[in-house]
Amino acid sequence: MLKELKHFAVQTRRKFHTFPEVGFTEFITTFEIYQMLQNLSFHLYIGKEIMDSDERFGVPKVEEIEASKARAIAYGVPEAFAEKLDGGHTGVIAVLDTGRKGPHIAMRYDIDGLPIIESDEAGHVPADKGFQSQHPKEMHACGHDGHISIGLAVAKYLDKHKDELTGKFTMIFQPAEEGLRGANSIVQKGWLDNVDYFMSGHLGIHALQAGSVAATAEQILASTKFDVTFKGKSAHAGVEPNEGRNALNAAATALLQLQAIPRHRDGTTRINVGHLSGGSGRNVIADKAVMMAETRGETTALNQYMYQEAERIIQASAAMYNVKASISFMGQGLGSVCDAEWVAIVKDACKNNPDVTKVFDMLPLQASEDASYMMDHVQKSGGIATYMIFPSPLPVGHHHPQFDIDEAAIRTAVSVYIDVINYLQHR
Amino acid sequence: MLKELKHFAVQTRRKFHTFPEVGFTEFITTFEIYQMLQNLSFHLYIGKEIMDSDERFGVPKVEEIEASKARAIAYGVPEAFAEKLDGGHTGVIAVLDTGRKGPHIAMRYDIDGLPIIESDEAGHVPADKGFQSQHPKEMHACGHDGHISIGLAVAKYLDKHKDELTGKFTMIFQPAEEGLRGANSIVQKGWLDNVDYFMSGHLGIHALQAGSVAATAEQILASTKFDVTFKGKSAHAGVEPNEGRNALNAAATALLQLQAIPRHRDGTTRINVGHLSGGSGRNVIADKAVMMAETRGETTALNQYMYQEAERIIQASAAMYNVKASISFMGQGLGSVCDAEWVAIVKDACKNNPDVTKVFDMLPLQASEDASYMMDHVQKSGGIATYMIFPSPLPVGHHHPQFDIDEAAIRTAVSVYIDVINYLQHR
Amino acid sequence: MLKELKHFAVQTRRKFHTFPEVGFTEFITTFEIYQMLQNLSFHLYIGKEIMDSDERFGVPKVEEIEASKARAIAYGVPEAFAEKLDGGHTGVIAVLDTGRKGPHIAMRYDIDGLPIIESDEAGHVPADKGFQSQHPKEMHACGHDGHISIGLAVAKYLDKHKDELTGKFTMIFQPAEEGLRGANSIVQKGWLDNVDYFMSGHLGIHALQAGSVAATAEQILASTKFDVTFKGKSAHAGVEPNEGRNALNAAATALLQLQAIPRHRDGTTRINVGHLSGGSGRNVIADKAVMMAETRGETTALNQYMYQEAERIIQASAAMYNVKASISFMGQGLGSVCDAEWVAIVKDACKNNPDVTKVFDMLPLQASEDASYMMDHVQKSGGIATYMIFPSPLPVGHHHPQFDIDEAAIRTAVSVYIDVINYLQHR
Amino acid sequence: MLKELKHFAVQTRRKFHTFPEVGFTEFITTFEIYQMLQNLSFHLYIGKEIMDSDERFGVPKVEEIEASKARAIAYGVPEAFAEKLDGGHTGVIAVLDTGRKGPHIAMRYDIDGLPIIESDEAGHVPADKGFQSQHPKEMHACGHDGHISIGLAVAKYLDKHKDELTGKFTMIFQPAEEGLRGANSIVQKGWLDNVDYFMSGHLGIHALQAGSVAATAEQILASTKFDVTFKGKSAHAGVEPNEGRNALNAAATALLQLQAIPRHRDGTTRINVGHLSGGSGRNVIADKAVMMAETRGETTALNQYMYQEAERIIQASAAMYNVKASISFMGQGLGSVCDAEWVAIVKDACKNNPDVTKVFDMLPLQASEDASYMMDHVQKSGGIATYMIFPSPLPVGHHHPQFDIDEAAIRTAVSVYIDVINYLQHR
Repeated sequence: MLKELKHFAVQTRRKFHTFPEVGFTEFITTFEIYQMLQNLSFHLYIGKEIMDSDERFGVPKVEEIEASKARAIAYGVPEAFAEKLDGGHTGVIAVLDTGRKGPHIAMRYDIDGLPIIESDEAGHVPADKGFQSQHPKEMHACGHDGHISIGLAVAKYLDKHKDELTGKFTMIFQPAEEGLRGANSIVQKGWLDNVDYFMSGHLGIHALQAGSVAATAEQILASTKFDVTFKGKSAHAGVEPNEGRNALNAAATALLQLQAIPRHRDGTTRINVGHLSGGSGRNVIADKAVMMAETRGETTALNQYMYQEAERIIQASAAMYNVKASISFMGQGLGSVCDAEWVAIVKDACKNNPDVTKVFDMLPLQASEDASYMMDHVQKSGGIATYMIFPSPLPVGHHHPQFDIDEAAIRTAVSVYIDVINYLQHR
Repeated sequence: MLKELKHFAVQTRRKFHTFPEVGFTEFITTFEIYQMLQNLSFHLYIGKEIMDSDERFGVPKVEEIEASKARAIAYGVPEAFAEKLDGGHTGVIAVLDTGRKGPHIAMRYDIDGLPIIESDEAGHVPADKGFQSQHPKEMHACGHDGHISIGLAVAKYLDKHKDELTGKFTMIFQPAEEGLRGANSIVQKGWLDNVDYFMSGHLGIHALQAGSVAATAEQILASTKFDVTFKGKSAHAGVEPNEGRNALNAAATALLQLQAIPRHRDGTTRINVGHLSGGSGRNVIADKAVMMAETRGETTALNQYMYQEAERIIQASAAMYNVKASISFMGQGLGSVCDAEWVAIVKDACKNNPDVTKVFDMLPLQASEDASYMMDHVQKSGGIATYMIFPSPLPVGHHHPQFDIDEAAIRTAVSVYIDVINYLQHR
Repeated sequence: MLKELKHFAVQTRRKFHTFPEVGFTEFITTFEIYQMLQNLSFHLYIGKEIMDSDERFGVPKVEEIEASKARAIAYGVPEAFAEKLDGGHTGVIAVLDTGRKGPHIAMRYDIDGLPIIESDEAGHVPADKGFQSQHPKEMHACGHDGHISIGLAVAKYLDKHKDELTGKFTMIFQPAEEGLRGANSIVQKGWLDNVDYFMSGHLGIHALQAGSVAATAEQILASTKFDVTFKGKSAHAGVEPNEGRNALNAAATALLQLQAIPRHRDGTTRINVGHLSGGSGRNVIADKAVMMAETRGETTALNQYMYQEAERIIQASAAMYNVKASISFMGQGLGSVCDAEWVAIVKDACKNNPDVTKVFDMLPLQASEDASYMMDHVQKSGGIATYMIFPSPLPVGHHHPQFDIDEAAIRTAVSVYIDVINYLQHR
Repeated sequence: MLKELKHFAVQTRRKFHTFPEVGFTEFITTFEIYQMLQNLSFHLYIGKEIMDSDERFGVPKVEEIEASKARAIAYGVPEAFAEKLDGGHTGVIAVLDTGRKGPHIAMRYDIDGLPIIESDEAGHVPADKGFQSQHPKEMHACGHDGHISIGLAVAKYLDKHKDELTGKFTMIFQPAEEGLRGANSIVQKGWLDNVDYFMSGHLGIHALQAGSVAATAEQILASTKFDVTFKGKSAHAGVEPNEGRNALNAAATALLQLQAIPRHRDGTTRINVGHLSGGSGRNVIADKAVMMAETRGETTALNQYMYQEAERIIQASAAMYNVKASISFMGQGLGSVCDAEWVAIVKDACKNNPDVTKVFDMLPLQASEDASYMMDHVQKSGGIATYMIFPSPLPVGHHHPQFDIDEAAIRTAVSVYIDVINYLQHR
């Protein structure tokens, strides 16, 4: 049975790999997850049932959501189903309540792709094996296709064993993890209330032989994502340069000065401006510039330090050139610490698992995750939470056009989740 | 007769206003000019006959030229004609040789539009009167539509009086003045050799009642237009910021530092970065950035000073971040000085012209012009050259979506050119 | 007689060259001028009679003034005399009122030295001839020693001819021209009220054979001199870099950003930070930085533009690093235009002067002068004003340790002033 | 006996507190240490015997060393003794070889003061008790006076017990720890060869009740100290700004850009420019600027990363303004890791010590230390090394004019060193 589930997970991952959709536009993805869960014994929730609309971060423009919806309908998603996801309310939550006394276990699987053009070069496995992205500008370049299929395999396992299991299972297929945009809206809707055990995790991250698992992760960096728009005044650069208020100058100043935020005594911090664009004609003083930025910190406080410094620097850069700066909040993740108890749980649970070659107590994530909102909520409510890592050989880094996962890591993850679920039944 | 010509110029200007085409893509414009000159007694030259292909600056990408060509064919330009302009060899040169001993007079009229979306607001005359641009992203926002029609009216005059006139007339309908890209290629082909008198000019510039003319212009700024590409290396901004080589940092540094080039003792200088764009995802160290820049100087030497400083600063900015910078030359204009003799010529020529309310000796242009290449060549060959200005009320500045010219200035210009031509016959 | 005066001027210049004193500390200089004028028929004014204390700019610290006073007393200046100059009220005004109806002519000669160590290398004339500075850190490196002696020679001439002359003569031996600090306080005291003709001038500036004079100067740049102090908070750079507020960062940002103030359509502008110093230990975040800066403009309005931009940039730079910036005003000059009538006056006056080889209508000064305050006041009161230039070969530029003047230029200047005075008697 | 030693240490510390001398100028300090050791059974080494002259870093100018030497002679140091320290060869090494088989234990005590003016405010204990610095511009503001006296007390203990002890003891009274300048020269001379156990330590650092000790320190940051000189070309900022090559611009650019060196994946890094000074007159383009800088890293590799980036940035900043930059190496420390065995050693050794209230396994130093050179050498040769911390209440931070140590911490340190020495005898 486990063997079949693992095979199922790999096949399913390849299927989902072909129609990646970026955050809050996962119409096809949501539909296909829903289809696969429909015949199992879960209560399924979609649309506004699963999230507080106003607590989503960085929702795309209506046009983008609509374009993805139209593509989904063309693909075969029934219009009535697509309507329920209107306005970007994508994702599925599946609940199995055994009715028997036992723990409430919640698991989170993120489902969104990235705005990356997938490589079609020889040697890139999805291309070689014919399951590369069919969406010209989107790609599953971070392994969320694998996460979906792990979640679906676990769901099948729960369904199969529903008469033996106790307690309650909440499986969250979350949209818009990239940019840290979706998790908070699900937490705010109450889905993480009264959870005893929360698990999530990530494929890859550490380039190691597949088969190992980190019971917990450290350095889940708090992060704030934000856009900045600078508005000045254009003028002819030859005739009257003094009449302009140069928005590009303000943006370039902010971009450079942000990097001078002092390193902090208390730990790791990060800042990045990943994109900047501004100005129009060559001979015109630029009247507008836009940049995409993010801060990070090893703790929520360190991220807060970075963000507050950033705010002041951005406003000072604008003042420098007499232009206006406005900051738009685009996403956020907290700094998280996994509960240490999970080390023993995962180690004990997997001790006879032949797929698992090694259980690390802890590996660094060194990145941000909005599962942190769920972890934080569960921990504050008295439950415990972990974020596991399932290493895999990585031909290139995450978010790269040739990103790929060794599917053996998917198999490992399926078996770890099932072992831990069983272990928690009797803890 | 003159009245008809002036009426013709205004009507023709309105026609050309409807199909603006940016530099080196003036397929319709070239065709329409050719059509109008075809029945007159000029020898007409087009395509590679009029320019040295390799001496053009800033030729657009093949796709852009092809798109404009396709549009022209759809408009009705015969495919065979369009073929002759292939690769962006637009523009027309019309030569009338009277066969009689007399001066060789060359005139230059620029014909290109701008990549600006024309306003359709009430109060914008072309919109109100129904002759606004039919090309959604292009506009005659600098008055070159008027320049074309002035040139065509003058051509009709020359044709009408061909039996009385002496010497030779070369009328250059030049593509790609914007960005200072077309003139040099025409000079290099030899069209300005052995010219005795060279005239060009501009509508507008000074917002005054129509009816005046500046016999000469000063402050025709030398200028170099160039693009810069910075190439670095991307990396995940959270996981391994030290692995990146930040191209946006290099570009922002260059952008700011360029403005610190010291002012020069010898006169006016300018620098501008009108556009900057770089980076990809928010959490990725930017591996590429591109900027559009220009230098100017009151003289060719001052522009050279600015450009040489700029080159060093750009390379140092790249070195600062261990990235590569490459500079692409996009266009150039020289610093020009009109020959002082023209003050008397224009004044004497127009003294009985009822359309001309005032002849200024000289007005500042404070901008750049690639007619400067033609002026320079003529002056070096022993001829004399001027650049006249025909002021007009201006509701907004040049290169603005609501730019418009008082058509009375077009009428003034037609009559001035004709008067001066007649005057030069007997000088 | 004129020959003697010219000889006297040269000898006197050498004397004054030996005890240069910087602005508002000219105790010896004031005393020696006073001594030489004492036996002539002038009314002499010193101390608070000649200036409005509070309208002086950039007065040095008490200690510096006291040190110079003590040095003067040691030199032989009577203590009672020195007391009258207390607090830096240096300089002399000498008035000769003939009692006869005639014009009121005012002349200004600046008397201060510079904080420069004079060269003692062979080839430097003052060193070779033994009249170099006896003050180890001060030097007459801008020719004001010459200006004093020209003024004294002219005074002797006026005294000699007092019975033939008409009108009134006000001779201003002004302290603290360097840094543009002294003139305003004299104007505010009323000494330039009711002046018909105002003359001042400068030796050198243009490196030409001595013997020529420019009747007027152009490009007398308006200028504002100011110091900026940035105050932040120190912290150990290793242990807690985040605790500092870096004053050096703010100062460096201001220094660079000031240079990005856009060039102005209306004419020449300048900005400079000539000195910056900040921080303490290598491993301490700098809590203080100080810089000396200046703006200039071809007109008072252009200088105002520069200064207002500078103010905003300085405050924004401070805000960037959460430090405080305070700006101290140190001196100021206006943009001046000489009255055009002086061209004819000087030309006519000197037409038979054998010392004058050429009278230029106008030469550019391209620097700043606080005589501008006097010119401005005279012009606003209905008088006319000029600033003459007396070119000289210059082995090196002004303000250089080897600066020197060809004394023939002093002789020329003496004869020009006398010729013009005589000419004005009969105008 | 121990009680007396502790009393001796406190008195001795107060004595040394009165004549602080900065690195490589510790003439009086060296003499007084020598005097106190002279009657004990150590072999004493001074001058060029203890260090490789050329392996010292950041040796002061000859004038500064000579001034300190003269002061020492005036103080009473015999001229012959002072001669032996000529050129800044300060410090003492004291060796006690018992002749009996046993471990070779080396201890290092740093002896230099800081260029800080000591506070004389009430409440500052050294002022209140009358042992404040007698050297107007120097101060023991980092506790090295305490280190000296701890070393001397330990020496007295060793001398007293020389007949019971085994093995060999090398006591290094090292000059010039501040700036990380002295240690390397001692290592290069061979004094750390064949050492089994190396101990050093620091008073203060953590503001805790006196009585605790950290058996080891972490985060001993590798560091490179360097000065940078930028040389450009001056010019009159008004007349010919284009003729200058602005050294202050280059320095300000480097200062700001250095802070943009990306944070590193592998751990803590630091950069600081603690001092910058440049330029001369307000209206002169600055031709020279000098800055004092330092890099740090949690490991030697991380510091290397920072320093290499810094070098490139400095050169690029110079190239930006066409000036020359030269970098002078001023000092260096390595990244060190204490051997973990020391935790058990110190804990066991002190378990019955009534002065020791708590033994921490490890506390962070978060600063740099050139004892790291000694530790590194001992560790590479097969010995083990530690760096202990002796916390104390701290009224203000280290390097502050009111810095002071609770003398109880000195007593604790004396007893810990003695306990550990005894423990190591039998290990």
